[in-house]
Amino acid sequence: MHIDELDTPVLTIDLDALETNLDRYQAYYTKHGIGLRPHIKTHKTLAIAHMQMAKGAIGLTCQKLGEAEVMVGGGLNKDILIPFNIIGKQKLDRLTALARRTEKLTVAADSAYTINGLSAAAAADGVTLGVVIEVETGSNRTGVTAQEAVELGQLIDKSPGLELRGIMGFPTAPSVRPLIQEILSLFDQHGLPHPIVSGGSTGYAMQAHEIPELTEYRSGEYPVGGYGHLVAGRHTVEQCALRVIATVVSRPNDDRVVLDGGSKTMSASIMQTDKGPSIGYIVEYPEARFYAFSEEHGHVDISACTKKPVIGERVQVLPVHPCPCVNEHNELVATRKGRVEAVWPIYARGKIR
Amino acid sequence: MHIDELDTPVLTIDLDALETNLDRYQAYYTKHGIGLRPHIKTHKTLAIAHMQMAKGAIGLTCQKLGEAEVMVGGGLNKDILIPFNIIGKQKLDRLTALARRTEKLTVAADSAYTINGLSAAAAADGVTLGVVIEVETGSNRTGVTAQEAVELGQLIDKSPGLELRGIMGFPTAPSVRPLIQEILSLFDQHGLPHPIVSGGSTGYAMQAHEIPELTEYRSGEYPVGGYGHLVAGRHTVEQCALRVIATVVSRPNDDRVVLDGGSKTMSASIMQTDKGPSIGYIVEYPEARFYAFSEEHGHVDISACTKKPVIGERVQVLPVHPCPCVNEHNELVATRKGRVEAVWPIYARGKIR
Repeated sequence: MHIDELDTPVLTIDLDALETNLDRYQAYYTKHGIGLRPHIKTHKTLAIAHMQMAKGAIGLTCQKLGEAEVMVGGGLNKDILIPFNIIGKQKLDRLTALARRTEKLTVAADSAYTINGLSAAAAADGVTLGVVIEVETGSNRTGVTAQEAVELGQLIDKSPGLELRGIMGFPTAPSVRPLIQEILSLFDQHGLPHPIVSGGSTGYAMQAHEIPELTEYRSGEYPVGGYGHLVAGRHTVEQCALRVIATVVSRPNDDRVVLDGGSKTMSASIMQTDKGPSIGYIVEYPEARFYAFSEEHGHVDISACTKKPVIGERVQVLPVHPCPCVNEHNELVATRKGRVEAVWPIYARGKIR
Repeated sequence: MHIDELDTPVLTIDLDALETNLDRYQAYYTKHGIGLRPHIKTHKTLAIAHMQMAKGAIGLTCQKLGEAEVMVGGGLNKDILIPFNIIGKQKLDRLTALARRTEKLTVAADSAYTINGLSAAAAADGVTLGVVIEVETGSNRTGVTAQEAVELGQLIDKSPGLELRGIMGFPTAPSVRPLIQEILSLFDQHGLPHPIVSGGSTGYAMQAHEIPELTEYRSGEYPVGGYGHLVAGRHTVEQCALRVIATVVSRPNDDRVVLDGGSKTMSASIMQTDKGPSIGYIVEYPEARFYAFSEEHGHVDISACTKKPVIGERVQVLPVHPCPCVNEHNELVATRKGRVEAVWPIYARGKIR
């Protein structure tokens, strides 16, 4: 089947671009002796996760337990990190069961509350859970200070059923190296192990070597790129593998066309660009601006286009943020040189628990 | 099962609030003799659509063909309006097939391109498709001018397989009445029928009677409300039926907690409030501000709270925009007075084609 035969809107991934991205990032991490632990939240598919592991990834990152269950159930049970505080009896029950089906399972914690829950569940079920402490490295989200990390490390170290495995942070710009060094020094002073020092964020993925203390790196978007990565120069247009194909369904005047995909297709993510807010980059019409959405309509300003798209025409759109875009879809169509090679179910879509 | 036994994050709907909203809006439309044609894009569930029809709705609005197929397949085949330009062979094939399974099916068009496609498909398949012309009433999206509407009306009127049914607009603030009157007058001058004059938008839903020319009104969010409707005074907190229950998973300091739901739970929709951008309204902590999200984290400023939420605590969150929020989820849990009464699959979720 040719890509032009796909009804629209449809989420596609270009396999040549995908493989190029997988190779160039894996080569970087192999060169620097840092483990690459891809974050599956971006693509949420088994097929791509299997490709990442086959190319040399040390394990996977799954933001939610339900995503980890999908990956482990799909044969990817070697090494899973869940960088999230797992709380509550229902999830803890599933977590200890998952630990039995996974060769190496590690979760993150940033509070005694989380650690105590993990320990009670692990001890009751007779399993050992690996735990890394989440430290605050600039996101102002979850994560603790250096001193708190030591205290939590000591708590984990003495808690039944738990194994202290080190620390993680998000994001880990090169500038956070002194903080990481400080924490590791404190850990050493207190005899706390830290076999895992995990950094993350695709934005700094090619600077991971500037923090030599990192043993591994978590990156989600590197396989697919996106409008933000294009602007930042991390991916060329050709390397932006994830694309929504949409059709022009209306052209009310010569300054505006409407596509058959809005927030339910692209996600409600909006990126600020130098031309104003944008919902996506239209490959065939770089001068056009996808400036707004309704749920099923994409509003595109074509006033700057010399050649103008017409009703019935198809365009390829790079999402501004691939992860939420993928989460709107049930399937990802894998193509190569215009041919549809596979239709991949997005199995981990909607796994919020 | 009690609502507190549901694992989080989870999308819930309060049945008492839902029924109150269905009744009060239906009563308004019945009183004014305007047909209520609920837009199912908000809830995307068969159960609520059946309730809306049972309470007196004249038919349903489905933004995409795939949504209409779900509704008709679920027994709701009385009267469907798809206010969207249906383009391309694959969709047109499905559309004419759907017309056979629906007592009354109407689609919108705003171009000769769309009309010619509809006519060719209908004539080839031996069915009649009802068509309304979408007119521009303030959204700067799709839709034509008064003069263009007449021209398209004449085209529809002479096109095999099509039946001109009138006009539709979105949104239809009371201020657009003169435009609607102008169009209807032009239609009358040219002998063009307009049995349907369809208005829409929940924002103006209770002002529909100020345009007496409207024969029907499309509203999606009235059954569930949301943060925007709360601010606008259209729904009380109690009438905001759609709620995400989330758990506090981290409290890095006394100014911030993190919930276990971010954009993958709430959608990436952001609303500007007088306190800054917001992702949702936290019912138990009105002083808190859900100011940012990651995909699986909700970032909440609790600096203004006198009593502060603690790790492990559950809160109810009103989304800022219910429609995209629902589209992130596979199931909607219907509750009443704390008891889980049903778990409804969100069958029309992700139906973008």
